[in-house]
Order: sequence, then structure tokens, then C-alpha cells
Amino acid sequence: MRIGFIGLGNMGAAMAANLLAAGHDVTAYNRSPDKVAALAGQGAHPAATVAEACRGDAVVTMLANDAAVEAITFGANGILAELPAGATHISCSTISVELADRLADRHAEAGQQFVSAPVFGRPEAAAAAKLFVVAAGAPAAVEAMTPIFDAVGQRTFVLGEEPRAANLVKISGNFLIASVIESVGEAMALVGKAGVDKQQYLELLTSTLFDAPVYRTYGGLLARGEFTPAGFAASLGLKDVKLALSAGEALQVPLPVASLLRDRFLTLLATGGGELDWAAVGALSAWESGADHPA
Amino acid sequence: MRIGFIGLGNMGAAMAANLLAAGHDVTAYNRSPDKVAALAGQGAHPAATVAEACRGDAVVTMLANDAAVEAITFGANGILAELPAGATHISCSTISVELADRLADRHAEAGQQFVSAPVFGRPEAAAAAKLFVVAAGAPAAVEAMTPIFDAVGQRTFVLGEEPRAANLVKISGNFLIASVIESVGEAMALVGKAGVDKQQYLELLTSTLFDAPVYRTYGGLLARGEFTPAGFAASLGLKDVKLALSAGEALQVPLPVASLLRDRFLTLLATGGGELDWAAVGALSAWESGADHPA
Amino acid sequence: MRIGFIGLGNMGAAMAANLLAAGHDVTAYNRSPDKVAALAGQGAHPAATVAEACRGDAVVTMLANDAAVEAITFGANGILAELPAGATHISCSTISVELADRLADRHAEAGQQFVSAPVFGRPEAAAAAKLFVVAAGAPAAVEAMTPIFDAVGQRTFVLGEEPRAANLVKISGNFLIASVIESVGEAMALVGKAGVDKQQYLELLTSTLFDAPVYRTYGGLLARGEFTPAGFAASLGLKDVKLALSAGEALQVPLPVASLLRDRFLTLLATGGGELDWAAVGALSAWESGADHPA
Amino acid sequence: MRIGFIGLGNMGAAMAANLLAAGHDVTAYNRSPDKVAALAGQGAHPAATVAEACRGDAVVTMLANDAAVEAITFGANGILAELPAGATHISCSTISVELADRLADRHAEAGQQFVSAPVFGRPEAAAAAKLFVVAAGAPAAVEAMTPIFDAVGQRTFVLGEEPRAANLVKISGNFLIASVIESVGEAMALVGKAGVDKQQYLELLTSTLFDAPVYRTYGGLLARGEFTPAGFAASLGLKDVKLALSAGEALQVPLPVASLLRDRFLTLLATGGGELDWAAVGALSAWESGADHPA
Repeated sequence: MRIGFIGLGNMGAAMAANLLAAGHDVTAYNRSPDKVAALAGQGAHPAATVAEACRGDAVVTMLANDAAVEAITFGANGILAELPAGATHISCSTISVELADRLADRHAEAGQQFVSAPVFGRPEAAAAAKLFVVAAGAPAAVEAMTPIFDAVGQRTFVLGEEPRAANLVKISGNFLIASVIESVGEAMALVGKAGVDKQQYLELLTSTLFDAPVYRTYGGLLARGEFTPAGFAASLGLKDVKLALSAGEALQVPLPVASLLRDRFLTLLATGGGELDWAAVGALSAWESGADHPA
Repeated sequence: MRIGFIGLGNMGAAMAANLLAAGHDVTAYNRSPDKVAALAGQGAHPAATVAEACRGDAVVTMLANDAAVEAITFGANGILAELPAGATHISCSTISVELADRLADRHAEAGQQFVSAPVFGRPEAAAAAKLFVVAAGAPAAVEAMTPIFDAVGQRTFVLGEEPRAANLVKISGNFLIASVIESVGEAMALVGKAGVDKQQYLELLTSTLFDAPVYRTYGGLLARGEFTPAGFAASLGLKDVKLALSAGEALQVPLPVASLLRDRFLTLLATGGGELDWAAVGALSAWESGADHPA
Repeated sequence: MRIGFIGLGNMGAAMAANLLAAGHDVTAYNRSPDKVAALAGQGAHPAATVAEACRGDAVVTMLANDAAVEAITFGANGILAELPAGATHISCSTISVELADRLADRHAEAGQQFVSAPVFGRPEAAAAAKLFVVAAGAPAAVEAMTPIFDAVGQRTFVLGEEPRAANLVKISGNFLIASVIESVGEAMALVGKAGVDKQQYLELLTSTLFDAPVYRTYGGLLARGEFTPAGFAASLGLKDVKLALSAGEALQVPLPVASLLRDRFLTLLATGGGELDWAAVGALSAWESGADHPA
Repeated sequence: MRIGFIGLGNMGAAMAANLLAAGHDVTAYNRSPDKVAALAGQGAHPAATVAEACRGDAVVTMLANDAAVEAITFGANGILAELPAGATHISCSTISVELADRLADRHAEAGQQFVSAPVFGRPEAAAAAKLFVVAAGAPAAVEAMTPIFDAVGQRTFVLGEEPRAANLVKISGNFLIASVIESVGEAMALVGKAGVDKQQYLELLTSTLFDAPVYRTYGGLLARGEFTPAGFAASLGLKDVKLALSAGEALQVPLPVASLLRDRFLTLLATGGGELDWAAVGALSAWESGADHPA
């Protein structure tokens, strides 16, 4: 397929590389052009403008937040203006339900397809094409984009015709990850202060009821106190918890653990930890118990 | 081995049956004698008193809470008075760190061994001899009791010489389970109110980062709204969260998620859900969002 | 003074009436014109458009939220376009710090004055000209508007040159009121369930350390379970708590009590209490304890 | 009246001095005898044992916690054993509802009277005989003790025949004070970080809806960052919040603000602030926002 790819951060660069590796024809755009050059070395066509990335069958966006997606899509010479009728915009970014609705509406008005396809996985998983893709949109459009999902992920879950459902599930999933970070952080503060070895504790957890990647990954970061370099920065974690709270407001669903997490992330940012991996919120319990701050 | 077994509730009856199945000579005691009769049908010697269950190499207690363990151990004609010097008291109950310390001290004074060996797993796992055993105590004593652990569980973790460490880890583990119940309950309230199918959502979670028994078990109960019969009653869940909070107080470790859980369990009990499975605390978010109460 | 007044809800109608009573020349505008007619009966000039309310020395806005203030100010034929250079826009609404900044900037660009002057007090206090006014803006502008503040309130606090400071203080004040509602609600749930008379309890509180209007007003509503008619609706309470959280985010200040309140208000709205007085959030503790829901 | 007085801490010494000043015949006992000598200088009879303080019409206890009251009352040669039949034990300490019940039962069995009479007020108020007394017990006994209440306080509230009601109200009152500390601390962290002067902010609050001693006292300590010497130590604050939580458990009333406060106090203690005034919990919000820790 001819694919445009916009957004070459940690995650996007790896995903675009996997599209190339799978034999796709990729035209890449990034706000800072040095990332484009790196990908061009792997076979991508460099794009100097968003418009140049909009000349294929699909354009994928993998950007940091709502504002970035809005700017690239709705701005002058943005995707909405440049993408041919019938082509598809695949949004892989973690964005709000509200923006997903707006994207779906506007692209439909313009005769374009829109598919929400946020992904689960950290940069390592992106590099290994082991992401999980959660896709939603018009069935024919989702079906047609399958080669893209297959190239970047290990499995794709299709959630129906409303793109917003995929975004809500992604937001709720990130909330669940953050919940694990917080609760394991509290448990490790407790057993750690009593002298139990954190690595042995983690091994026990992950050998029994908690035998899941989320405990191995984040429990490991917490047991080792390893918060740099950030695979996913605390400031992005705050953004995602706020997306969950905002979705909860729209649906009138109180989320007390998300409220706690929001306060935790604000504390981490206000005390110098905004650049740390978001796993560092799990170290605040130990800090409150008298240990050093993670930053 | 000649083993006494005290406490034939859902969990204890299954564990004692597995000791019998493994060829051990088991003498069983329970406060209400009908449970003893049932086990006698499987080959156990019935004991009419605690003392009769204290005549072997070891006596296992599997009781509901601190008060029950204190009564059976320190009461008149209790374990402390009746167990021969050199024999071992294995406490599998989920009890406080403080009581574990007291049991260790008193048994040592009496020339008896004490091993803390709480277990992870619900009644189904107990019946299948698939529990996880977390053991701590004098190395020789723990080693000598290995046949017992092997008969009831699929794996044993040894945590050092201080019995209390095993209890703290068990308490923290139950706290982590309750944290999963709460966070998955919040996430399901959110996506469910948006119309996402809860079973499909759970399958997505447990196929990806959350591929662990704790998510499958409790996520399944929540997705199906299946809170009776209780594998582990909400009132016991409150007890365990309070043990975590109490351990946190002794160590000066604040545990905000445990504080939230305590309030949740009190709400569930006060609104008629004390007999439900503790998974029902995860249904309170949906209740607060306008759905029916789980009771 | 010649004063335009925009927004004739419970609060605004009473404030405008007091301006008339103090001898000012008031031109009144409201989206639904029947409220204008009522005030015209008290001597106000009816305005059919925002523009007609912008022909005096000052225009006061008393509107429900940011969106309403934005629409009236920045919309076509809005205040910004219609107010003469040198005249003053006094914003009495409870709005976000961010909007206050924007209003200050835009009015300055247009050669107009802008003063933030949010008020404390419920409709009864507004009717009695007993509001407390918190004003901030250019000193000369604030000084010139003193007759307006004197006509509607019992005392004015001047907080400096930055309008935003007045809004932040107002937001924080409403947060403190909501905190009192919540904590008194919890305390009454506790003593009430033990059989202590709530009115006697309240008298004890307000005769001692808690001898303040906020306890008398909201404690009284809670003791009597009197949530209709709403002096200030729960949905507006949610709005104000969100303003506090939003200000906290901008300044990186976690506010755990505000987070709790947000969840409480969402619960109240989701369970049918959005039209109740915001004091009803204080009744949720009793609901969680087994009593009836306030709605 | 002939009165025994047991417990000469900050509060008790001032109360005993006021009893002397009112003309009563006071026999004073304290665990560390130097405090007794100081009071003897003001006219008290020194008691070397609890028994010597039990020879009048009434004995007042003003002690730190449940354990101290239990030891003095139920211990060998304690109040229960030494107080004459018909004489009255007045417990002014902040103790648990459960202990109040036990005291009432045991004194009744011994033919003695028991009155719960906890007090509101800090050491300054105790010194000025300006405490508020909350009394409950058999009407005749409460009536007979009025001269004592009048000598130490400015007003007495009588809550009925069950001593426990007075203790529950006292516990809930301390919870409300701590709630004010927390919420004002959050609000000051917010406005303070925006540059608003905290003293001016407090003056605004206490001139308007929040015109109550609790805001003046604790708001003042927070605005000035004045946490030593402790009028009431953080460690005692934790004790009282735990009494509220414990009462809530017994009655099945969740108290989310109390849960938050418990975590706050634990944090303060774990990070070196156990000796500070309990107002310092209100400074943790600023600490989380990047300011210095109060200790």
C-alpha cells in the first residue's frame, strides 16, 4: 500500500519502520525534519509537508495529544484538506473521545474514511512489531487497513463501527496500566519498608495471580527504581489520566482511582519528575513513607 | 506425616482433602462438627477437641481471622498448651503481622516450631491443589513441612526466617487483588456505559497486557455480574484491606488505594452486600453511575 | 451610573434590582426576555440586544459559565465589539482563570477596561445586598466601579491588578464551601447513624469552633435534608469544582479533596440529583451508609 | 467540691488550675511527678498514687489515649478499684466509643457514676477556661458535675444518657477540624502558588462565609507556617482520625475525607513531622506542589 505516516516519535518511528519492512511504500512527515531523514535511510520517501504525506491510500497519524492531531488535521493544508476522497485517515494516537467524534464527522463530510486505531505497547513492542491494535470504524475501511495493522502489531481487536469506542478502550487501558503502577508502588513501599526484597516479591507476584506483562514491565521498573530514560513520560501519563477523567465526565462515571492518579501525576510533575517514566508515580508511596523522591 | 487440621471452611476442607489424597494421616477439627464428619468420610480421623488434633508432627490452622486463630491457639486447651515440643504449627490463615509475631514468640517459648504459610487461591484452586503457598519461618521447620505445602499447592515461595514476612506478603497480595477489582470495575463502568460489550472488553484486556489469572477471574465475575455464591465474601475482603492498612500504619506507609477500598467495602456492607463475593466492590462504580446496586 | 446588566438568573436579577434601588440607571439584557420584563417593572430599561446594554459606563455580566461569558463577549455584536472605549466590563460570574486572562487581554487591546468581581453569597444574600465582592483589575477601574460593588454587596475585597486573582480566590472559596458540605455530610452520617439528633449536633458545632455562616447554611440544609429548591444547583457545583481542578492543573497543585468532590458530584448527577442544591453531595455519605438517596 | 484530677499535660494542667481558681479542693496525680509539684504550688494536694486522687466526689481524667485511660482505670489500684460507690468518674480525654461503653458498664457494675465529658479547645482555651464541654451520662450525675464543667469551660452541651454519644461527637468534631486543616491547606497551596498573599486570603475567608474560630486558628497557623511548638501534635491527630475511622467501621459509615486524612498524617509522620502541630498536615499540599516540607 501507499501510506503516509505523520509523527516519528519513539513509537511512530518504529511503526513506520515496520511498515517499510513489510514492503509498504511509506512517505513520512515529522515536524522536526531530522527524524524524517533517519527514516529515509530505511527507504521512506521524505515529505516536506503534510500534503505530501496525503497522496496514498491511507495516512497514519501517531502524535502526542489532541492539539497535535487537531493542528495536523484541521490546520491549513492539513489532512482534511489534502487527503483524496475515499482515502483513509488512521489515527493511532491516544486522543480524546470527543476529538475522535469530531474527526469521524469531518472526514465523513469530506468523503474520506476515518479509522481509530490506537495501540497498546511501549517503544520496545513497537520496534518488535508486537503492538496490540484496537481498531474501530466503518467495517470496509477497517478491513482494508488490515495490512497496516498486521505490519505494526501482533494482534488487532475490532470494536465496531464507532471510532470513539477504540479511543475509549485505549484510554481505559492506559488508566488500568496506571492503576497497576500505583497499586504495585503502594505494595512495594509496604513490603520494602519491612525488608522484603522487591525483586523476589515481584517474582512471586508474576509467578502467581499477577502473571501478566503489565506487572512484569512496571513491577520491574519499580523494583529497580529505573525511571530514565522514559519509555512513556510522566507528563504523557497525566494527559492520559485526564482523558479518562474527561471521558468519565461526559458519561457521568466517577473514577476515584483515576482521580487519585491525577493528583499523583501532578505531584510528580510539581516535584521535578515530569521527564521520568510514568512508572515513577508508583515511587511516590515510598517517598511519602520517608524514602527518596524518584527524581 | 501425621497432621492435625483445624478449620474446615471452603478453603480448609479442600486443603485437608488434598492432604488425605497425598497419603497423609489427617486428624481434623472444626468448631461445627458436621464438617468433620464429611471429611471423615474421606478418611480423616475426627477430632472432638483441639487437643486431639495436636498429637502429630504438625497442626495446620486455616481460620477466618485473628480472633479465631487467637482463640484456638491461646485459649484453654489450645494449640499452645497441647502441641508437643518440637512439633510445628503451620498457620495458613490470612492474619495480621502483629499476630504472626506473637505466635512466633509464644511457640518459641514453648519449644514449638511456628511457620507462617498463607496461601493464594480461591476455593476452586484449593480443590485442585493449585494454591500458591508463601512460607516463612526457621529454615529447618519450613523444609520439614514441604510435603504439606506440596500436597495443597502448585508452588511454594520461601521468604526467609521471619514468619511475619509471609503474612505481610499475603496481605499485600490480597490488597493487589482488591485493587484490580476496583480498577477493572471503574473501567468497565466507563466502557460499559458507552455501550462496549464487557466480555469482549475483558477478552481484549486478558489477551494483551493484562493476561493474568487475577484479571480473568475477577474481570469475568464483574463482566457477568456474578457475585453469588461468594468464593470470598465481601466481609472478609474488608478484613483483609484492614490488615493492609494496619500493617501500613505500623510501618508508616500511607496506602491511598487501600483507603479507598476500605470505604468501598464499608459501602458495600452498609448497602446490603456483605454476603456477596468481594468482586462486588467493583460493581459500585456502575452503581454510582446510575446502574443497579449489585445486591 | 449608567450600567448595563447581562444575565438575570437567580443571582443576577437580585443584583440588578439592588443597582436600581441604589439609584443607578440600569439597562438589562437576558437571553430569555421574560426576565427582562420583570426587571423593567422595577425601573430598568429593557435591552433587546447585548449592544443596547453596552451604552453606559459599565456593563456587568452575571452568567452561568465560561461558555456563556465567551458567547456574550466574543460573539458577533458582543460586548467586545459594542462597548465604548474607556468603558468597563465587570465580570461577576464564576469563570476560569484562563478565561479571565483572555478577557483582560482582549478588552485591553480594544481600549476597554476589564474588572473581575466574582461574588460570594446565595440568592438570599444577593436579594439583601449582602454579597461579598472580590475585585481585581487596574486600580483606577476598580475604584471607579465602587458604587456598583457597594450597591450589591456588604463588603468588597480588592486583590490587586490582575483580574485572574479574583477568579482564583472565588474558585478556591467555592471549593472550600464544597469541602464543608462533604465533611459535615460525613460527620452527620456518622453521628446520625448513632442516633444523635442532627439539629442539636449542628447547634453544638455552630456554637463553638464552627460558628460561621458556611456551617449554619449548609449544615442546616443537610440536617433538614432540604435540597429543593436549589439555591445553587449540583450541576453548577460540579462546574466550580472542575474550575478548581483546572486551576490546580495549570499551577501543578494536586487537590485531593477537590478530586473527591468531583467524583461525588458526578455520582449525584448520574443518580438523578443534578437539579438538587449542591448541598446534596453531603447526603451521599448517608446514602452509602444505607440511608435513602437524596433525589 | 473535692475533686481528684489525673493527667497534667498541656490541657489537664490548665483545667486543674481553673478548678483551683474556682475554689475547688483538688488532689492531683500525674505519672511524672514534677507536673504535680507545679500544680501543688497553686494550691493542689499532691497525690502519689491514683488511689489518693480517688477520695473525693469526683475524679477527672484527662489523658492521651485509650491505653492510658484503660491503665489508670482498670489497672491494679486503679480508679475502678479505688473510687467510692456513688462517686463519679468524669472522662475528658478523647477516647474511643468502644472504651466509653466499657467504662460505663464497669463503673455501673461497681456502683460508681460515669460521665463522658470531652472538651473542645486548644491549650490557650484551656488556660482561659474557655473550653467547650460535651457531656453525656445519667442526668443526675451530669447535673451534679456542672460546677466542674463551669470552672473549665465557657459552655456545656448535654447530649443525653449514653456517655458514648459525647465521645462520638468529640471524635467527629476533631475530624471536622482536621478536614478544615486539609481543605484550607489545599486552597492556600493553590492561591499561594499563584502569588496571592496568604494572610490577606485568610482575612477574606474569615471576614465572610468562613468567619469561625476554626478557620482563624488553623488558617493562621497555615498562613504563617507556624507548626512548633505543637498545641496538638500530629501524632495525636492521627490517633483521633483513627478513632473516627474506627467509629465509622463499627457503624458501617464510609468516611472518605477521614481516609484521606489518615494517609496525610501517616505521610507527615513518616517524613519527620510527628512532633509538629497537626496543622502541618495542611502544609503537605504545598510540599506536593514543590514547596518545602513543613518539618
